[in-house]
Amino acid sequence: MTSTVVTDIRTLVTNDPALGDGSPLGLVENAAVVLDGEHIAWVGPAADAPAADARYDAGGRAALPGYVDSHSHLLFGGDRTAEFNARMSGRPYTAGGIRTTVAATRESTDDELARNLRHFLDEACRQGTTTMETKSGYGLSPEQESRALRVAAEHTDEVTYMGAHVVAPEYADDPDGYVALVTGPMLDACAPYARWIDVFCEKGAFDGDQARAVLTAGKAKGLTPRIHANQLSHGPGVQLAVELGAASADHCTHLSDADVDALAAADDTVATLLPGCEFSTRAVYPDARRLLDAGATVALSTDCNPGSSFTSSMAFCVAVAVREMGMTPDEAVWSATAGGARALRRTDVGRLTPGALADLTLLDAPSHVHLAYRPGVPLTARVWHRGTPLAV
Amino acid sequence: MTSTVVTDIRTLVTNDPALGDGSPLGLVENAAVVLDGEHIAWVGPAADAPAADARYDAGGRAALPGYVDSHSHLLFGGDRTAEFNARMSGRPYTAGGIRTTVAATRESTDDELARNLRHFLDEACRQGTTTMETKSGYGLSPEQESRALRVAAEHTDEVTYMGAHVVAPEYADDPDGYVALVTGPMLDACAPYARWIDVFCEKGAFDGDQARAVLTAGKAKGLTPRIHANQLSHGPGVQLAVELGAASADHCTHLSDADVDALAAADDTVATLLPGCEFSTRAVYPDARRLLDAGATVALSTDCNPGSSFTSSMAFCVAVAVREMGMTPDEAVWSATAGGARALRRTDVGRLTPGALADLTLLDAPSHVHLAYRPGVPLTARVWHRGTPLAV
Ligand SMILES: [Zn+2]
Ligand SMILES: [Zn+2]
Repeated sequence: MTSTVVTDIRTLVTNDPALGDGSPLGLVENAAVVLDGEHIAWVGPAADAPAADARYDAGGRAALPGYVDSHSHLLFGGDRTAEFNARMSGRPYTAGGIRTTVAATRESTDDELARNLRHFLDEACRQGTTTMETKSGYGLSPEQESRALRVAAEHTDEVTYMGAHVVAPEYADDPDGYVALVTGPMLDACAPYARWIDVFCEKGAFDGDQARAVLTAGKAKGLTPRIHANQLSHGPGVQLAVELGAASADHCTHLSDADVDALAAADDTVATLLPGCEFSTRAVYPDARRLLDAGATVALSTDCNPGSSFTSSMAFCVAVAVREMGMTPDEAVWSATAGGARALRRTDVGRLTPGALADLTLLDAPSHVHLAYRPGVPLTARVWHRGTPLAV
Repeated sequence: MTSTVVTDIRTLVTNDPALGDGSPLGLVENAAVVLDGEHIAWVGPAADAPAADARYDAGGRAALPGYVDSHSHLLFGGDRTAEFNARMSGRPYTAGGIRTTVAATRESTDDELARNLRHFLDEACRQGTTTMETKSGYGLSPEQESRALRVAAEHTDEVTYMGAHVVAPEYADDPDGYVALVTGPMLDACAPYARWIDVFCEKGAFDGDQARAVLTAGKAKGLTPRIHANQLSHGPGVQLAVELGAASADHCTHLSDADVDALAAADDTVATLLPGCEFSTRAVYPDARRLLDAGATVALSTDCNPGSSFTSSMAFCVAVAVREMGMTPDEAVWSATAGGARALRRTDVGRLTPGALADLTLLDAPSHVHLAYRPGVPLTARVWHRGTPLAV
């Protein structure tokens, strides 16, 4: 195990107010970080840095914790380029939406699923994402959901069982029968591979009672809930998330004052906003400012999936959140790192403090503000993932 | 001089309807391109490709002409991160805006200006931009403007004299005196280094009569006009552009029906839209759909500058144009390549046809649609610039 001191960091985001300038980002100017094996050993002013086996000169760049992307759907097969193209071109498109992906995913081999997942995890990591959650939800049978999650568990620790993504086509006339499957045999088959359970609580998907049944069954099997809540319309999802102690209510686009109050009062339920989705569907953006002003904890995530948000760029989400959702650059960067960690109930990622995992991103920029200031520009200069440097 | 056949291109954008499927993008599926020295020698189906000295397998990726970015302001010194951060954080910021950049630019050495320019040209090229215009306009004296343009001419053919960016601080009380300087001694000093002349026609900058004087003087010296028109409010800029035969009216945010009609009727004046600017200033977007439906030619460009649009990513502009300006993915890709070439009156770039320059971008994607479908993701896999492959 060798140690490396990364020095001459112009602006370092630690996300530890005690380490830095007292702000939530815990900024340290002219900083250094010592990586020891897979962990951070030391953080502070470059002038005070202890010796290490190796030295890397950041050349005045900014550094921040690797992004924590807490919401993605990467266990899929098939291609929906034509559907996106038609939607954005104002042309009608009759074929299937999510059903297209379900059919193609079911036809994919395990190897194809794994290769596709690995492709997007690697693509995200090159862009600075060092922790990435992913969900099932395109298999919709015990066999298909469990094999997708088995594949996922080989590539990420943050695996979510989402048999309750939509009602499987075989159960179109018997949604309650599908809920019984999801909470029974499918859950039994999937629980060994997953940490989380998720449900799409929305008109046309699962109502409040169904969502409650799904999440409650998951909890009984040791999974922690998260929930697709209040995306397309107002619904009971957010209240349910808080009531059941879900780690996160995701989307949060259509919120009542009571929803905002509930999220603000919740100790441990994060509001995860997914601007890539509204960008790619020309939908109204969630109001991050309202949530932040009320005192809620906000995370940003990509929602990377082939239907509604095919970006893997957390930097893009930061820029759009600043442009469209009333976040300051500082808040958006916090939400894409520490916020994601909170949404995954992790204390070892999303921060650069002694003992945390050595997940570090260097930017081709002097400040983290450039993530919003220079939208679309690939600013990731170098990534350390669990202490290992990655060619970007 | 060696030739290279780039083969196994899943989707090739040629921008020549005659070569491809008859659409403006001239799409060829399963295509190959032969590069011979600095030029394109052959384009067509991979199965028919002639032999060449070398072979590059595109592996089923999409390819398109290098982006033509026809509007940027890269001859600057200094840093405006704090101003951007304050603006997007809703905090007051009293220091100078463009005046900050003018002061810092004047204090920069030639070497500093050149290094900064080179940095952004290289950054853009790694993202697939193989032709990039840039402007003066932060010097505002004959010495400062001409030395900036001299530096620019060493790095790009597309150099624009824009002494009429704002009134120089020394002439705050004598704007007509400044116009006399811009159209007299400053023009004399600058004309040898420039191809274009530009003016910011806007309330608070230069009015219609002043803009006319600037462009007319430039024409008399052999420069071709382009104009910052109708950005912040409705004004005479677009009409002036068409009347004077400007290559482009840039911004075009606030247009009357008569402006749209004039652009549609113009043979050779392109409407250049700059979505990065509206993105980064939270301003209303121009309506590309209205212009396209009327029959105008539309280009997309970054407007890369440290004040109002610090992106160098043409892919980002494509994605935002589709999200916000009513363009289809096909139209946006055309506007970022062929449209930019039209705005610079170039027939040797922005297209992949025999005889054109060998400026070619490969995408980590099977289709050009992914530039809008996967916003923020750095999809540029490989770039050939004037026939030379570039490590991305
Ligand atoms: Zn989702
Ligand atoms: Zn401009």
